[in-house]
Amino acid sequence: MTGHILALSGGVGGAKLAAGLCAVLPPEQLTIAVNTGDDFEHLGLTICPDLDSVTYALAGLNDTVRGWGVADETWQAMGMLSRLGGPDWFNLGDRDLGLHLTRAMHLRAGDTLSQVTAKLTAQLGITHRVVPMSDDPVRTQVQTDGGWLDFQHYFVREQCRPEVREVRFAGAAEAQPSPDLAEALSRPDLAAVVICPSNPWLSVDPILALPGIRDRIARLPVIAVSPLVGGTALKGPLAKLMAELGQPVSNPALAAHYGELLDHLVIDETDAADAALLRDAGLCATVTQTVMREAADREKLAQEVLALVGGVDRQG
Amino acid sequence: MTGHILALSGGVGGAKLAAGLCAVLPPEQLTIAVNTGDDFEHLGLTICPDLDSVTYALAGLNDTVRGWGVADETWQAMGMLSRLGGPDWFNLGDRDLGLHLTRAMHLRAGDTLSQVTAKLTAQLGITHRVVPMSDDPVRTQVQTDGGWLDFQHYFVREQCRPEVREVRFAGAAEAQPSPDLAEALSRPDLAAVVICPSNPWLSVDPILALPGIRDRIARLPVIAVSPLVGGTALKGPLAKLMAELGQPVSNPALAAHYGELLDHLVIDETDAADAALLRDAGLCATVTQTVMREAADREKLAQEVLALVGGVDRQG
Repeated sequence: MTGHILALSGGVGGAKLAAGLCAVLPPEQLTIAVNTGDDFEHLGLTICPDLDSVTYALAGLNDTVRGWGVADETWQAMGMLSRLGGPDWFNLGDRDLGLHLTRAMHLRAGDTLSQVTAKLTAQLGITHRVVPMSDDPVRTQVQTDGGWLDFQHYFVREQCRPEVREVRFAGAAEAQPSPDLAEALSRPDLAAVVICPSNPWLSVDPILALPGIRDRIARLPVIAVSPLVGGTALKGPLAKLMAELGQPVSNPALAAHYGELLDHLVIDETDAADAALLRDAGLCATVTQTVMREAADREKLAQEVLALVGGVDRQG
Repeated sequence: MTGHILALSGGVGGAKLAAGLCAVLPPEQLTIAVNTGDDFEHLGLTICPDLDSVTYALAGLNDTVRGWGVADETWQAMGMLSRLGGPDWFNLGDRDLGLHLTRAMHLRAGDTLSQVTAKLTAQLGITHRVVPMSDDPVRTQVQTDGGWLDFQHYFVREQCRPEVREVRFAGAAEAQPSPDLAEALSRPDLAAVVICPSNPWLSVDPILALPGIRDRIARLPVIAVSPLVGGTALKGPLAKLMAELGQPVSNPALAAHYGELLDHLVIDETDAADAALLRDAGLCATVTQTVMREAADREKLAQEVLALVGGVDRQG
């Protein structure tokens, strides 16, 4: 494969495919644009959960047993903060705090989130481009019976218990794509967009909500890897959310959500029966093992996705 | 003993006697005013080393082996920050960071340092009043060959290596004593001031530099416990600093520095020979064991100091 690949990623699930893509593509052929809709300000720090999940995964620092955060993590700062009556609902590990403190220092000094992210990833030896979707604040919020909730209040504090009626991305209409995302989108050699197996409604839609992104992407082959496995989500509130939004929890419903934008959906072998339905709807569908337990799985899936790039024709 | 005691304290050494005083006096009879000249802003946090040393000591959370900071401390956040290229010269432990993050949160919300300190000490079950000397920023600086250095740059980053020619307390002239210190000083039943075994030039002088403090204290019995043991300091740069400022490293020189303010100096048994010199200079002197290795030592010294209160006559 030649040409540049733009990957869109949320947190943990997306980060696995992002790591696979980094293993099989040289840095100059890949830009990983990461959702920042989950970012929030807490304890004077700017927390960027998805950027950090991708960063930790690419640096090999992610905790593969717990499934999120940094390996060899401890929780001493939160223990003391909790004892002192501070807000302990968002559990920040000690190593993770070291990153947040460093990022906050650079942001206070005037760096953009893109500039900080470039510094932090470089320090960790990451040579591929991991970029925030935007340097402007975009904040995902969900409409519940109790009104609009900031994403982390819904996701962490309320542990996704409230029923979600609607999702919005505050600030998205005024936000600009980050310079590196804009640059990737304007490359004449941009060959395809890979949507990593992240939650479409919560992790990918914020990126697609940025001005101009949908129009540009619509002119490219777009290949998504479904986050559904066996008709549900491996992790996170996707299945619950789809049901609450009145959708069947299925790959066809997920593909329909992306609509015209999507050309090819890669689905898990446990959902092989969906392939015919997808093809009936005019989409290309590939059935493979999408569950990535170790590096070999990530690389194999990345290879399979990239092998599709040449074969994807733009619809319509 | 009846009446109220005002203790002035710096960090670790002073905190030991402060803990002893808390063990033998009920909360309503004691105010511990703590030096804030060592405070500094770092990583978006306000670090108050002396307030924290006293707080940790009174809460029984201090590390007695390392001699500073919190027991069971880890350094994971700093390890990550260092790996990310952040400023790691000031080693903040993870548990300690939990306190700094909580304090910073309250300060951002508009609390004064006094208000935050009251909240944090109460959360840790401390019933005695631990108060900052001032809610206004006072910053100790030392004049060196390389110019004026902020205290923590001298003390931690440069590890007290530069020769000190002069000490100043930026902001002291405009700072007000904290409400609790002012209240203690205005009490009609204020019986005595106890200067804990802290560095006079670096830890006690900032408190004495606040407007009005010297005048008020001069009218009270003032009993200091010398931080010198065996003609040198147990910890910290006191001996080096006294020599650099052209002073003999001795109890008489230390007493002369306090001058008219001081009525009684409690010195260690290893410096018993100094007692006659102090008495020749018109001071009361008590010789005892000032080294506090455990709780019993702290309480015994506190009892001995308090026993002196009734017997101290104001000079002149």
